[in-house]
Amino acid sequence: MRTSREARTHQNRLAALAGALAVSRVSPLACWFSSMLYCFGGAVLSGIMLAEPPVAPLSNGTGVMLASIIWYLVFYCPMDVVYSCAALLPLRLVLSAMKEVTRTWKVLGGVTQAHNKYKDSLLVMIAIGWARGAGGGLISNFEQLVRGVWKPETNELLKMSYPTKVTLMGAVLFALQQTHYLPLQKHHLMLFYTIFIVVNKSRMMLTGSSSSPFAPIESALYKTLFSGHSPYAALTAEVRKAGTDNGTSTGTACHATTKESEKNRSPGQKNSSSPVEGEEGSLKAKEAEDSKKIN
Amino acid sequence: MRTSREARTHQNRLAALAGALAVSRVSPLACWFSSMLYCFGGAVLSGIMLAEPPVAPLSNGTGVMLASIIWYLVFYCPMDVVYSCAALLPLRLVLSAMKEVTRTWKVLGGVTQAHNKYKDSLLVMIAIGWARGAGGGLISNFEQLVRGVWKPETNELLKMSYPTKVTLMGAVLFALQQTHYLPLQKHHLMLFYTIFIVVNKSRMMLTGSSSSPFAPIESALYKTLFSGHSPYAALTAEVRKAGTDNGTSTGTACHATTKESEKNRSPGQKNSSSPVEGEEGSLKAKEAEDSKKIN
Amino acid sequence: MRTSREARTHQNRLAALAGALAVSRVSPLACWFSSMLYCFGGAVLSGIMLAEPPVAPLSNGTGVMLASIIWYLVFYCPMDVVYSCAALLPLRLVLSAMKEVTRTWKVLGGVTQAHNKYKDSLLVMIAIGWARGAGGGLISNFEQLVRGVWKPETNELLKMSYPTKVTLMGAVLFALQQTHYLPLQKHHLMLFYTIFIVVNKSRMMLTGSSSSPFAPIESALYKTLFSGHSPYAALTAEVRKAGTDNGTSTGTACHATTKESEKNRSPGQKNSSSPVEGEEGSLKAKEAEDSKKIN
Repeated sequence: MRTSREARTHQNRLAALAGALAVSRVSPLACWFSSMLYCFGGAVLSGIMLAEPPVAPLSNGTGVMLASIIWYLVFYCPMDVVYSCAALLPLRLVLSAMKEVTRTWKVLGGVTQAHNKYKDSLLVMIAIGWARGAGGGLISNFEQLVRGVWKPETNELLKMSYPTKVTLMGAVLFALQQTHYLPLQKHHLMLFYTIFIVVNKSRMMLTGSSSSPFAPIESALYKTLFSGHSPYAALTAEVRKAGTDNGTSTGTACHATTKESEKNRSPGQKNSSSPVEGEEGSLKAKEAEDSKKIN
Repeated sequence: MRTSREARTHQNRLAALAGALAVSRVSPLACWFSSMLYCFGGAVLSGIMLAEPPVAPLSNGTGVMLASIIWYLVFYCPMDVVYSCAALLPLRLVLSAMKEVTRTWKVLGGVTQAHNKYKDSLLVMIAIGWARGAGGGLISNFEQLVRGVWKPETNELLKMSYPTKVTLMGAVLFALQQTHYLPLQKHHLMLFYTIFIVVNKSRMMLTGSSSSPFAPIESALYKTLFSGHSPYAALTAEVRKAGTDNGTSTGTACHATTKESEKNRSPGQKNSSSPVEGEEGSLKAKEAEDSKKIN
Repeated sequence: MRTSREARTHQNRLAALAGALAVSRVSPLACWFSSMLYCFGGAVLSGIMLAEPPVAPLSNGTGVMLASIIWYLVFYCPMDVVYSCAALLPLRLVLSAMKEVTRTWKVLGGVTQAHNKYKDSLLVMIAIGWARGAGGGLISNFEQLVRGVWKPETNELLKMSYPTKVTLMGAVLFALQQTHYLPLQKHHLMLFYTIFIVVNKSRMMLTGSSSSPFAPIESALYKTLFSGHSPYAALTAEVRKAGTDNGTSTGTACHATTKESEKNRSPGQKNSSSPVEGEEGSLKAKEAEDSKKIN
């Protein structure tokens, strides 16, 4: 099961690469803009959220120039030397570790920027820190649109990837530190957080596992908060009642729904310790099921 | 006809509920964010329109906390007590009436905010007042996107719902009052408008009718302004001429088109007094028809 | 080949007109809003990019009133007099020339506005000048969404139209002039640029050709920069390796890929001198091909 899913993930990644290749061939400009959105997505998104010019990253000439040169070399270098080198595991490991280090700075920058504008608002700090650190992922729907791809059925809120999760965790920690709820000094927190994300990223790359270290916590949180006894029975009952071809709704609505919701939940929890991670694609399946029930 | 449409609307509502249930199960975060966009959509939209931070609603800690608690109770309360209670008619009536009262405040707030920035511009005041009061509906395409749903063929401008219409009317009235074109005192207008929307909403909920009180006015306006004699004949004629399999275009283009446009219009006006309301889905049908004619 | 493509383009234009007609009939408000986005799209887009109120164009009462009157006359004038007149070639020629003259002013306005905020940033000036001058095209995806149309597979970055290209060129020239890299006086540059775009537009309208005057430059640039020897061989090789039903991958990956990329590139370059122009639709084809290879 796990191997087939990994193979699927690998194929998806290759399909995405192939799409990116086609775009780089058809329209270098769209390819460049999409890459820049990926690099500076956090600054663009946090700029929009704070009503500061989202065009600001372009004014940082050196940064854009550097990103553009690397973009050019990755996509158009003769003999594809640059991509081939960067794809080698040791170099990829070093580059990924460096990327994770910048994540700490981005998150901290976002939290500080929000703190300057909204002194006491923990939520705003978390939101801006998260947006700054994981912007490329959060606006992925629109980054894809630049390349002519549109996948509305998926986004980083519906199914968070590991970088998005770890950035959210960092934003929460730094915001708590900033408001002195977390009794730690800033540079200590930065050190601990950076070590954690670098070690974790390296471990994931070396073992090839995509299991999140948060899976047990997530699972516990999910079970505690979001799956009480027979949740939203009345809603589901009404949905059920609408199914006219469903002749078996004889038991009490509440009881029937409890069983049904257990049944609905079981696939996600058998296959994986984290329901959010494990329910890959089950949203679609469920919607199909629901619409079947209704029609 | 009407009953079947109402049944369809009810089924659509149930399908939407089922989708919301699936999202609340798969990703509580996406569900929460979508709910917050629904609650604070007006503030977010008017913030973007006036280049003020759209993240500002998050800084109102009490409001977000209250909305989050209610969101949590509606979706995850044990035994689904909260939703079941709120779904009872008397309580729903009270809650809806209270919601309509807040609409007055939202519209007025938007108009005042715009008046502070753009002294004399009636249009900006109307736009901001409308956006503030009906924001959740106007950004519904993007609110749906958060939940992985994408329905580009429909939006609140193409087919306005009753709340969006009544908010637009309110924004126009308050903007006229603000610029002293309407010889009424502000608190009188607020009182009259609030009574009108509360009474109207209650009437609609009690009778279960979805007929808008503006239907006659809309119909009259539409007939006067937007359906002159043989409108856009030349355009339609050109579209016609492109249809090569259409051997009957012998009459003068203008005459033929007049008849054709009458024919096109008739379904919408037979079925309903309001063409905008009644032409539900006819846009799709027309486009199919048009493309048939062309190809 | 060329004739059939032109016929297709004409049919697409008619289909778009038919869609616009349907929208103007079903929802005059959506039609009006879409038209206003088309007129003031540049101001809206550059406003968002510089964190200035995108609602500002609405505060220019005279402009909106004028645009609205023309919109009304084009869509709803009795006997369709206005559209018929405007569709006559001599009048269309004059109107188009006037539209091109305003383009100079828009681009210059955008560049100056950006220069006031970001003194030394060439990139920001180009971006804002381009957005101001070609805004309606650049946000066409969202302008279409207002009318219930969604075409994610195409946008102005993936396949630039002539007006978008000429505006980008103008933005680059005016930004270079503003930063004194271009040793020309502003009013001379304005004169030359305006004459160039007016003459070019008139030529294109009179000859009915859609060939861009930049085709040779584009082609040379593209060949020099974006199609080195065997670009991204490693990437493509990996994509190839994933294809299990492809039993012919016996040569060295690099060699095989070079040939393949040549093969992939050839259709675009045989049919047209400009690869960007000529690869119309090839993105889709390539993606289909790629996904076939992978699955």
